[in-house]
Amino acid sequence: MNAAILKGKVTGVGTGPGDPELLTLKAVRAINEADVIAFFCKKGSSGNGRAIVETHMRPGTLELPLVYPVTVETQKDEAGYKGPIADFFDRSAEDIAALLDAGKNVVVLSEGDPLFYGSYMHLHVRLQNRYQAEVVAGITAMSGCWSMTGLPLVQGDDILSVLPGTLSEEKLAERLANTDGAVIMKVGRNLPKIRRALASAGKLSDALYVERGTMANGAAAKLEERDESPAPYFSIVLVPGWKTRPGDVR
Amino acid sequence: MNAAILKGKVTGVGTGPGDPELLTLKAVRAINEADVIAFFCKKGSSGNGRAIVETHMRPGTLELPLVYPVTVETQKDEAGYKGPIADFFDRSAEDIAALLDAGKNVVVLSEGDPLFYGSYMHLHVRLQNRYQAEVVAGITAMSGCWSMTGLPLVQGDDILSVLPGTLSEEKLAERLANTDGAVIMKVGRNLPKIRRALASAGKLSDALYVERGTMANGAAAKLEERDESPAPYFSIVLVPGWKTRPGDVR
Repeated sequence: MNAAILKGKVTGVGTGPGDPELLTLKAVRAINEADVIAFFCKKGSSGNGRAIVETHMRPGTLELPLVYPVTVETQKDEAGYKGPIADFFDRSAEDIAALLDAGKNVVVLSEGDPLFYGSYMHLHVRLQNRYQAEVVAGITAMSGCWSMTGLPLVQGDDILSVLPGTLSEEKLAERLANTDGAVIMKVGRNLPKIRRALASAGKLSDALYVERGTMANGAAAKLEERDESPAPYFSIVLVPGWKTRPGDVR
Repeated sequence: MNAAILKGKVTGVGTGPGDPELLTLKAVRAINEADVIAFFCKKGSSGNGRAIVETHMRPGTLELPLVYPVTVETQKDEAGYKGPIADFFDRSAEDIAALLDAGKNVVVLSEGDPLFYGSYMHLHVRLQNRYQAEVVAGITAMSGCWSMTGLPLVQGDDILSVLPGTLSEEKLAERLANTDGAVIMKVGRNLPKIRRALASAGKLSDALYVERGTMANGAAAKLEERDESPAPYFSIVLVPGWKTRPGDVR
């Protein structure tokens, strides 16, 4: 398909967990070379990813905000990828396809890592068979969180489980009891349930709570010492593995 | 403890999965500012981490190779952190402590991410209570592998399990059957067993094999199509979650 050489390339670029210095050299180059920077955002906000890359954009770079429909959180957790959210990803992919057809190179920003719970994945699967598609790995939120707190997470033959806080209390407790290290995502309003599940699994005293990890207003505390006030949606709970380590480092 | 201000700082710096461009801006700054660069290596080789950062080191930066004792692989998998390997980490920590006491800032390179199955963790726990210790997150090998292959790994409420290939066939099969996405590390000579466990779990046809991910000689293939020749120790098997995605992208 020779015509493909004239088309642009789409690149999913991980912008990392929040600290602008946690961008990779490869991400900086992709952003600097892009004709168009596309980014997911909520209505009225251009999002963290866009703020992180600002200083690396060439003057005159086109911007394509992909504004989530208001229903996104509900739909995502419930009806899979049907309905308004699937339509939104379809439309976003077609907007990008039109730019690629015009020979533009498009970077799609993705907070954290593009293929690890990122919205970019929905565009990637819609575009990768029709266009040249590349992915630039990013530092995940969880990696930013354990690095910020200096908590060694897993070592040697440890098993690590990454669990959504949306699981039932019973399932969470069972998973937590049967792993070495654990990362619990989507904490938000699930925090009281997560706390009970950790207690059932005998791991509450090991757990660390982190919100807005690596950002200027990031904070961390032992989960036992954290109060019951509502947690932000993107807060994380870390449970270290590595039981055989030396010293009193917990 | 006012004397501490005169002491140096130790920084564990993730050098990422292999591609020198997957270094973060923060890592580059830490390396450039370091008085001493310490790195783990085998006898006769200075290691991947050292090669990745070479162009970012100031002329005159001191280097401290931490040469693994020959017994490291055996000991690590068996007797925990006792014996020669614990002695090695004790000695390495003391060598670094002497430099910190002399007011030098020491960067310890860590391939991938320092607190995710990295050797730096063993120094961190020995030094963090005595000195200022910081960690700069790095792109993990697994993230480099799924990005290189463009394989969306986990989405929405997926569970991800990171499993060592050293688990028994039965345990591996059980874990694989009870997760959405999975990453199997330490593949090496465990490859035939991993293949059988994936077949038992009904996931062999989904699995992707990646060796030396993001490096110049990196390669990936569907595990079903990969032959039975020995795999490098640091190869990885990826099993995608996200069953509800649109299209024919597997």
